[in-house]
Amino acid sequence: MKVVKTVQEFRDQRKNLSNPLGFVPTMGFLHEGHLSLVRAAHRECRSVAVSIFVNPTQFGPNEDFEAYPRDMDADLEKLEGEQVDIVLTPDKDDLYPAGFQTWVEVESLTQPLEGIVRPGHFRGVTTVVAKFFNIVQPDRAYFGQKDAQQAAVLRRMAADLNFPLEVITCPTLREPDGLAMSSRNTYLNPEQRKAAAVLYRSLNEARLAFEKGEKNANSLRQLVKNIIAGEPLARLDYVSCADLVTLQELDKIERQALLSMAVFIGKTRLIDNVILG
Amino acid sequence: MKVVKTVQEFRDQRKNLSNPLGFVPTMGFLHEGHLSLVRAAHRECRSVAVSIFVNPTQFGPNEDFEAYPRDMDADLEKLEGEQVDIVLTPDKDDLYPAGFQTWVEVESLTQPLEGIVRPGHFRGVTTVVAKFFNIVQPDRAYFGQKDAQQAAVLRRMAADLNFPLEVITCPTLREPDGLAMSSRNTYLNPEQRKAAAVLYRSLNEARLAFEKGEKNANSLRQLVKNIIAGEPLARLDYVSCADLVTLQELDKIERQALLSMAVFIGKTRLIDNVILG
Repeated sequence: MKVVKTVQEFRDQRKNLSNPLGFVPTMGFLHEGHLSLVRAAHRECRSVAVSIFVNPTQFGPNEDFEAYPRDMDADLEKLEGEQVDIVLTPDKDDLYPAGFQTWVEVESLTQPLEGIVRPGHFRGVTTVVAKFFNIVQPDRAYFGQKDAQQAAVLRRMAADLNFPLEVITCPTLREPDGLAMSSRNTYLNPEQRKAAAVLYRSLNEARLAFEKGEKNANSLRQLVKNIIAGEPLARLDYVSCADLVTLQELDKIERQALLSMAVFIGKTRLIDNVILG
Repeated sequence: MKVVKTVQEFRDQRKNLSNPLGFVPTMGFLHEGHLSLVRAAHRECRSVAVSIFVNPTQFGPNEDFEAYPRDMDADLEKLEGEQVDIVLTPDKDDLYPAGFQTWVEVESLTQPLEGIVRPGHFRGVTTVVAKFFNIVQPDRAYFGQKDAQQAAVLRRMAADLNFPLEVITCPTLREPDGLAMSSRNTYLNPEQRKAAAVLYRSLNEARLAFEKGEKNANSLRQLVKNIIAGEPLARLDYVSCADLVTLQELDKIERQALLSMAVFIGKTRLIDNVILG
């Protein structure tokens, strides 16, 4: 496994990577969710590249950029175990040199949900991913369904800007109690960790109700709210039942819908979602 | 010479083009200025691609998108004469399908000069050029120095987003009386066409003054203003003497400077520039 620290070193190596090349962009502190993306890339591609970069431009001024967990040695060991071909670990001055001033923005898809509470977040995500697409030049790029809006935004960006690659979304990996795997789970103390299972439990209850015939979006949102309200350590940020493609809120579910939420457990903000239909 | 009308057809042909591939994006109605870019591409590359697309997103609502001159047959004949390998002539629904919502924006470089009078113009340019870069996947892309700010903005975009290509700026081609070649010159009646020579005449006088030792930017701007004021058919929109890299207005010229202008001749708005130092 090659580990390169600069964009230029990656470019120098690119011609030695067999095509199709699969790419998994990450912010490190890797868990089984990330590794499942690497495995999907291996199944569908002849070589696999991973980036590890905690991207400052997607964090708001009051968010957890400094606190975001990092463990490069453990990450590289895990990726070595997955037989990744090359890992790019750039520093921020390489990606954002003095004078940097270009941004990629997706408009309507970035407005609702995470876009409301995290202004500028998606602009940071789309910009850094566009940069990585141009550096890595992959044939397929892999993202997790846990960040459902991010996946929708990046698929839109890739199509709109004609990137010559496929954006692939892989299922959310979960802990035994249903909690979606996330690097931010490490912020939780044992009591909070236990309480955090309420996110998926509430989504799952709503899904069961949907499957039994409940198509009223507001009833499903209310069902989720009630379950979250029953967990003293949890505070709901939002629950949404939106069209899976446009992310616009629904009254009645007639096509595939995204039931998604953000919940604070203490100071830790967790997100999760399920697809209905 | 292949002529393809869709992005998909171009993609299908891309692997048949020898590398390095040179790319000349145009809005058609080709003149010797465009052809000089094609010739530069031929000198430096093994194959050459040209796009012809009057990009609606770079025209303001009160600008000349509808009136912009078009002559596809003549254009293709000229490109055939230059032994271009492939021409892409997409329609706007192919580049901007329903639901399109992604924009590439360069910040500070797009604010002064053309950015003041043409809000949104550069956003349209950077977005469509980013799209073409991803469709064509050239090794080098060629732009004219006549659109000096555009060239600076696109060079910045390519660097900031790590496009794996080189942006090359070629000298402005001029008519015998010095008028910079432009598709918009066709708007001028014979009297206006004669008057239009005042743009380059004024720039040239300022350059001579600079070369004789005048380093005060305001004196050079004033010199240009006075010459334009002496031409009854001309109305100055702006004259700028700015740092060549940052495009910030200068007091005193200490490094390379861009002396640039926009002038109305009747309803036709023409731009031109020279580099000082």
